[in-house]
Amino acid sequence: MKFSNRIMDMQESPIRKLVPIADKAKKRGKKIYHLNIGQPDIETPKEFFEAVRNFDEQVLEYSSSQGIPELIDGFIGYYEKYGIDFKEDDIIVTNGGSEGLLFSLLATCDNGDEVIVPEPFYANYNSFTSAAGVKVVPLITKAETGFHLPNKEEIVSLITDKTKAIIVNNPGNPTGTIYSKKEIRMLSDIAKEYNLFIISDEVYREFIYNDTSFTSFAHIDDIKDRVVIIDSISKRYSACGARVGCIASKNTDLISQVLKLCQSRLCVATIDQVGAAALASVSKEYLDNVVKEYKKRRDIVYNSLNNIEGVVCQKPEGAFYVIAKLPVKNAEDFIIWMLEEFDIDNETLMLSPAQGFYATEGLGLDEVRISYVLKEDSLKKAMNILKEGLKLYKDRN
Amino acid sequence: MKFSNRIMDMQESPIRKLVPIADKAKKRGKKIYHLNIGQPDIETPKEFFEAVRNFDEQVLEYSSSQGIPELIDGFIGYYEKYGIDFKEDDIIVTNGGSEGLLFSLLATCDNGDEVIVPEPFYANYNSFTSAAGVKVVPLITKAETGFHLPNKEEIVSLITDKTKAIIVNNPGNPTGTIYSKKEIRMLSDIAKEYNLFIISDEVYREFIYNDTSFTSFAHIDDIKDRVVIIDSISKRYSACGARVGCIASKNTDLISQVLKLCQSRLCVATIDQVGAAALASVSKEYLDNVVKEYKKRRDIVYNSLNNIEGVVCQKPEGAFYVIAKLPVKNAEDFIIWMLEEFDIDNETLMLSPAQGFYATEGLGLDEVRISYVLKEDSLKKAMNILKEGLKLYKDRN
Repeated sequence: MKFSNRIMDMQESPIRKLVPIADKAKKRGKKIYHLNIGQPDIETPKEFFEAVRNFDEQVLEYSSSQGIPELIDGFIGYYEKYGIDFKEDDIIVTNGGSEGLLFSLLATCDNGDEVIVPEPFYANYNSFTSAAGVKVVPLITKAETGFHLPNKEEIVSLITDKTKAIIVNNPGNPTGTIYSKKEIRMLSDIAKEYNLFIISDEVYREFIYNDTSFTSFAHIDDIKDRVVIIDSISKRYSACGARVGCIASKNTDLISQVLKLCQSRLCVATIDQVGAAALASVSKEYLDNVVKEYKKRRDIVYNSLNNIEGVVCQKPEGAFYVIAKLPVKNAEDFIIWMLEEFDIDNETLMLSPAQGFYATEGLGLDEVRISYVLKEDSLKKAMNILKEGLKLYKDRN
Repeated sequence: MKFSNRIMDMQESPIRKLVPIADKAKKRGKKIYHLNIGQPDIETPKEFFEAVRNFDEQVLEYSSSQGIPELIDGFIGYYEKYGIDFKEDDIIVTNGGSEGLLFSLLATCDNGDEVIVPEPFYANYNSFTSAAGVKVVPLITKAETGFHLPNKEEIVSLITDKTKAIIVNNPGNPTGTIYSKKEIRMLSDIAKEYNLFIISDEVYREFIYNDTSFTSFAHIDDIKDRVVIIDSISKRYSACGARVGCIASKNTDLISQVLKLCQSRLCVATIDQVGAAALASVSKEYLDNVVKEYKKRRDIVYNSLNNIEGVVCQKPEGAFYVIAKLPVKNAEDFIIWMLEEFDIDNETLMLSPAQGFYATEGLGLDEVRISYVLKEDSLKKAMNILKEGLKLYKDRN
């Protein structure tokens, strides 16, 4: 039986495809530090679990396709704190940021259309675009310039009559880069001049480690009908398993169109929406502490990487990832080797090969994405394992 | 700003698009009997809620993209009771049957490919195919023959070199039709002869009111590599808001391909999977009672409809829907009129216009889908409201 070309062309998740190899190592009794996946170890606010436990309907019914009103209100209140004025008709609750991305693509692009995406980018963008039959046109950004954007001419040169949108992830996964107000303004001008949508994935909005204030595309008033914000509670509240996010846009026509897709999948899990709505009462301290914790982790990882011979990386400004160039030919081979053959006191670590975060053939082969989502002690141990592993691997090759 | 053609072409859910009108009526204090949506009023098994309440992790983590092992085991055990031998590698947990349908389409069809679907069919098939750029080729079935399949020649005449799959919903929504073993065999032969997949949506498997035993496509051994079963706990366990279903197929290559899509959306809500896994211990009596209850409801609705002048319908064999032809020109106009202008003691009812369940232009205009998902008393009242409403509406027009 023949499968579709779109699914055959789709890559396996670079974050998850090596999991079977890790599972085998675990079965042999090895402990693995998971720096491959953006799964924080921070406790989910108890408000979420309490609301879930207090859910006392007798029938677990469908909820509204747009999302339960309490949660939509929660998102409105959340954006208010950022000075962003979204109303009820501007917001749709989605199955995490993932569904928001897929639905935004489906609503703005037809089969064969193109989207411009700064590269390296969140690997699953490749999957969503494959599913939607949309071509990713990568906008190459470089470690040397902290993965910041090139000049306007270079970006504009990628635009064709098939280009429908620019997708940005800000703060960026896997780069840790935060775009400056100037960069946001430049992209806004391009969107205006060339009649494009901007799909802005801002799920790491809180995770900022420098002093500059964060500029959301929702802050740019003169392109408000072009901006689609993708959001999620997954990282912010360490609630990845809830699968709750949203699409927010002041283009209410777009929201109406996306709602047709939402109606077809009926609703987002009801109980998880109830839990997510309760997050509105989580204290500011919770998030402040989370960010403080991640800043500490960022520093540990960045300083450790700088102390490993042959490793090159930029200091991430936000999110909780860093792209590191390793002194190896093929990073995926090295990761597999670390899982299968290396350990210190029966412990090893797992990273994501960075190749899957690129669309340009040949890029990222010797790079990894490191998620610094573990506690200080574990991170230090993991970084030492990486250092020793690289030493042995280099000698071996 | 221009949206994609695929989203502009997508219909609004006929089940949900009149909800704003109903909401307005409710705001004016009217009570509405909802026979428009397949939302059962049966209590969800307490096992589900107990498992949810007992979830005591501190971090709500992503779960496996394939689904949590306990739930996959649960599905395996469930199928065993039907004499169907699925193994771990044959099953993927999905966000309800909806995601299973979309993912099956994406994995088997490219943009421009065709699927044959007996018509009338579950309205959201139109949405999923629009999203995937797949053309629905309707196979017309008629009320006069209980919406059973036409002969082989008629079906085969629809096949082109773009046809990739036949989608069936058995027992059928909105028809209530259950395909006989002979019909299943005929479709299996066609799939074999013309190299097609069969995507078999069997979410109403339990809801059978005649004495013939149910034949699943998973029972047909000689086409096992062509069959994709779509399933869901929504109807069976009155757990629509959990958004938990599965794709099951003995074509493990297909499962591997679909897993790439699953990895891109990371996972199905973790807590709902835990709740769903606990359903394995629900007693057989629960389902027996549910089916008994629906059989009673089916009889009430069918008999009531037969007593309304000018209404034509077939006795449904399964699921919990019936398609009824009303003595009106346009069923949607009538439904809106019932919501806005008619009541008995300030009560009215809501139905789904059947047009959205057809792909063939002009069909279903004077038909409605009735979901018999309410208790005996409510159903009787609702049927009386329908009878009186039709009487007045006819005089009025």
